[in-house]
Amino acid sequence: MKDHVYKLLELTGSSTTGIEDAVTGALTRAAKTVHNLKWFEVSDIRGTIEKDKIAHWQVTMKVGFTLDE
Amino acid sequence: MKDHVYKLLELTGSSTTGIEDAVTGALTRAAKTVHNLKWFEVSDIRGTIEKDKIAHWQVTMKVGFTLDE
Amino acid sequence: MKDHVYKLLELTGSSTTGIEDAVTGALTRAAKTVHNLKWFEVSDIRGTIEKDKIAHWQVTMKVGFTLDE
Amino acid sequence: MKDHVYKLLELTGSSTTGIEDAVTGALTRAAKTVHNLKWFEVSDIRGTIEKDKIAHWQVTMKVGFTLDE
Amino acid sequence: MKDHVYKLLELTGSSTTGIEDAVTGALTRAAKTVHNLKWFEVSDIRGTIEKDKIAHWQVTMKVGFTLDE
Amino acid sequence: MKDHVYKLLELTGSSTTGIEDAVTGALTRAAKTVHNLKWFEVSDIRGTIEKDKIAHWQVTMKVGFTLDE
Amino acid sequence: MKDHVYKLLELTGSSTTGIEDAVTGALTRAAKTVHNLKWFEVSDIRGTIEKDKIAHWQVTMKVGFTLDE
Amino acid sequence: MKDHVYKLLELTGSSTTGIEDAVTGALTRAAKTVHNLKWFEVSDIRGTIEKDKIAHWQVTMKVGFTLDE
Amino acid sequence: MKDHVYKLLELTGSSTTGIEDAVTGALTRAAKTVHNLKWFEVSDIRGTIEKDKIAHWQVTMKVGFTLDE
Amino acid sequence: MKDHVYKLLELTGSSTTGIEDAVTGALTRAAKTVHNLKWFEVSDIRGTIEKDKIAHWQVTMKVGFTLDE
Amino acid sequence: MKDHVYKLLELTGSSTTGIEDAVTGALTRAAKTVHNLKWFEVSDIRGTIEKDKIAHWQVTMKVGFTLDE
Amino acid sequence: MKDHVYKLLELTGSSTTGIEDAVTGALTRAAKTVHNLKWFEVSDIRGTIEKDKIAHWQVTMKVGFTLDE
Repeated sequence: MKDHVYKLLELTGSSTTGIEDAVTGALTRAAKTVHNLKWFEVSDIRGTIEKDKIAHWQVTMKVGFTLDE
Repeated sequence: MKDHVYKLLELTGSSTTGIEDAVTGALTRAAKTVHNLKWFEVSDIRGTIEKDKIAHWQVTMKVGFTLDE
Repeated sequence: MKDHVYKLLELTGSSTTGIEDAVTGALTRAAKTVHNLKWFEVSDIRGTIEKDKIAHWQVTMKVGFTLDE
Repeated sequence: MKDHVYKLLELTGSSTTGIEDAVTGALTRAAKTVHNLKWFEVSDIRGTIEKDKIAHWQVTMKVGFTLDE
Repeated sequence: MKDHVYKLLELTGSSTTGIEDAVTGALTRAAKTVHNLKWFEVSDIRGTIEKDKIAHWQVTMKVGFTLDE
Repeated sequence: MKDHVYKLLELTGSSTTGIEDAVTGALTRAAKTVHNLKWFEVSDIRGTIEKDKIAHWQVTMKVGFTLDE
Repeated sequence: MKDHVYKLLELTGSSTTGIEDAVTGALTRAAKTVHNLKWFEVSDIRGTIEKDKIAHWQVTMKVGFTLDE
Repeated sequence: MKDHVYKLLELTGSSTTGIEDAVTGALTRAAKTVHNLKWFEVSDIRGTIEKDKIAHWQVTMKVGFTLDE
Repeated sequence: MKDHVYKLLELTGSSTTGIEDAVTGALTRAAKTVHNLKWFEVSDIRGTIEKDKIAHWQVTMKVGFTLDE
Repeated sequence: MKDHVYKLLELTGSSTTGIEDAVTGALTRAAKTVHNLKWFEVSDIRGTIEKDKIAHWQVTMKVGFTLDE
Repeated sequence: MKDHVYKLLELTGSSTTGIEDAVTGALTRAAKTVHNLKWFEVSDIRGTIEKDKIAHWQVTMKVGFTLDE
Repeated sequence: MKDHVYKLLELTGSSTTGIEDAVTGALTRAAKTVHNLKWFEVSDIRGTIEKDKIAHWQVTMKVGFTLDE
């Protein structure tokens, strides 16, 4: 049972449709450059408003991944 | 580049369907009396339960808008 | 089952006698101008001291009320 | 107007689809053994990632119910 | 000097009269089913308003008790 | 010794020069419509960046004032 | 308009009767050795339970006083 | 890939020797009555002092376990 | 490499001019009676308003110093 | 209206002169290696003291920038 | 059953070996000048690094003691 | 007296033996790729449980290092 070390990135995803899509978008982007993504934790949900409508949902999250040896 | 002043309102939206709809409902109501809505920040997600089912999602948020000069 | 929208005010009540009276005083004042008060949440309890005695209890609370359609 | 006493449970629901489903799943499970569920409060939103995709949304919540006399 | 283990329950007491009575009511109810209550910690003070008056004070607390061996 | 009730507004001031100016700007704007401003509490300090320079300091604060009888 | 400096002490008062008495007891004790007490802020409300009854309310507070020049 | 539901208990372990032993003691006690313990989260580290020495380390933690179907 | 013990004081400095001056004023006052001041941490920024102007900035901070052996 | 993804860095800037200069110094350094800096959020203000004077203001902030596609 | 008043000190202990030793060191130092130490609460765990090794663990704690009558 | 800029990484170390080893493991791993590590701050202590025993302690920390010019 090996002792792993993980690193956490903090990202903000944005989406015109909702919270889940903003998270998914950020994780998809992170996966392009980081391997071994393991978990995420949502820390903030907010958004921008234009002409009385929600323009973008903005969800900030921490993303943990295993550091390669 | 003008220095704006913004005011924040705190609202709780409720919805039988989910979180996004509760936020949208509150912002739609706020837009009836306040102009220049710019952003929102979700601070609390809760809800009521009736007969073992979620009756209403209740989402509390702050809403920022530009104060007219 | 209608979807309501609620607004939260933040008030500080003060009282020479105690916490409950400070809350009651603030709600009584709020009820003069706002209808449909539904709930309150205490966020801060403090006070002023004069000549080694508590001069005023100061209790800060949020007060929620239904926005009229 | 009777004085009720409520108990709060803390649960984590998980779902492959999203936040609302994770909450609903946990409340459905709680209703099997606890009666008089009244409200819930979301305290944490996180999830697991497998092969660059969200495997499970994990939503932690407190659930309040009336204690029988 | 034995090493004890304690369990914490989370309860919300309600009272038409004030904060102390809401706490006392919840502890009285807890004592019906749990022995060895040792301490409590207030985590939230709020209440409901009906017709511009406080209907119920609602005080949420954690209650610690010794687990029997 | 009268029991006062205070109301708190939440404002965000912005300034190209610094934190104190952002606060002063917001209070100057608030004083146009509210009398009896008594105190402020800074809750958030952030800002926008354009072309590698701070464009605006944005300071969020609560402002307390005495409610007229 | 002189620039004062204040010091804050942290105290826990206890009382068999309630929250206000625990605060008052701590401030009375503090006034024996510190002059110029100006304000207090409650940071924690808890208590001990003996034989299913509240033995002592324990209220922790910060107390501010003017430092003599 | 099944959607699990987890329940969290809150426990305080105590130990004359240190933090890890206080956690281990609480988990050992919990395992007597609860199956499927999965994780723990430390939320508070404190202790009692007698005759100028630490008498007991007291560590409060949440413990998560899978609810049986 | 000796193991030091540090004590933290909590102070509120006030200034008519700004945040930095309020901190400096409090530290200057503290240095009159305490030696070996090592660091400070700002925990609260607020102020008083008189006639629509900031009367005093009030900055609360913790100040750490080495305890003499 | 494209859905952006942002990354947040956490930096501590230091300055002998004040808070704004500590923030500016950190952002200037960040701009050497990161493009598209968009916003910052101050999370901690502290400093070191030498010979009873502030040696360095130390301001910790998060800095957000757009991730290139 | 007497109503006690307690005072809380805030201390940071440091140790080259670990968390428990940092706490013990601070309490040993406090016991030289304060009698009736009753409890402690850990609020922060950090440390310094030199040449890629932990130089000192630094643990900040509050320490409560009974005020003599 | 130069104005440094520091960057903070967030890491989670894991260990089968205890908290200090989890921190040490994460710092050892970080030192392989980052120079000038200066300090760390523990933000979360948790762990996994397998067959009623602690499998891994998981300690999340921020680690600060000097940015090279």
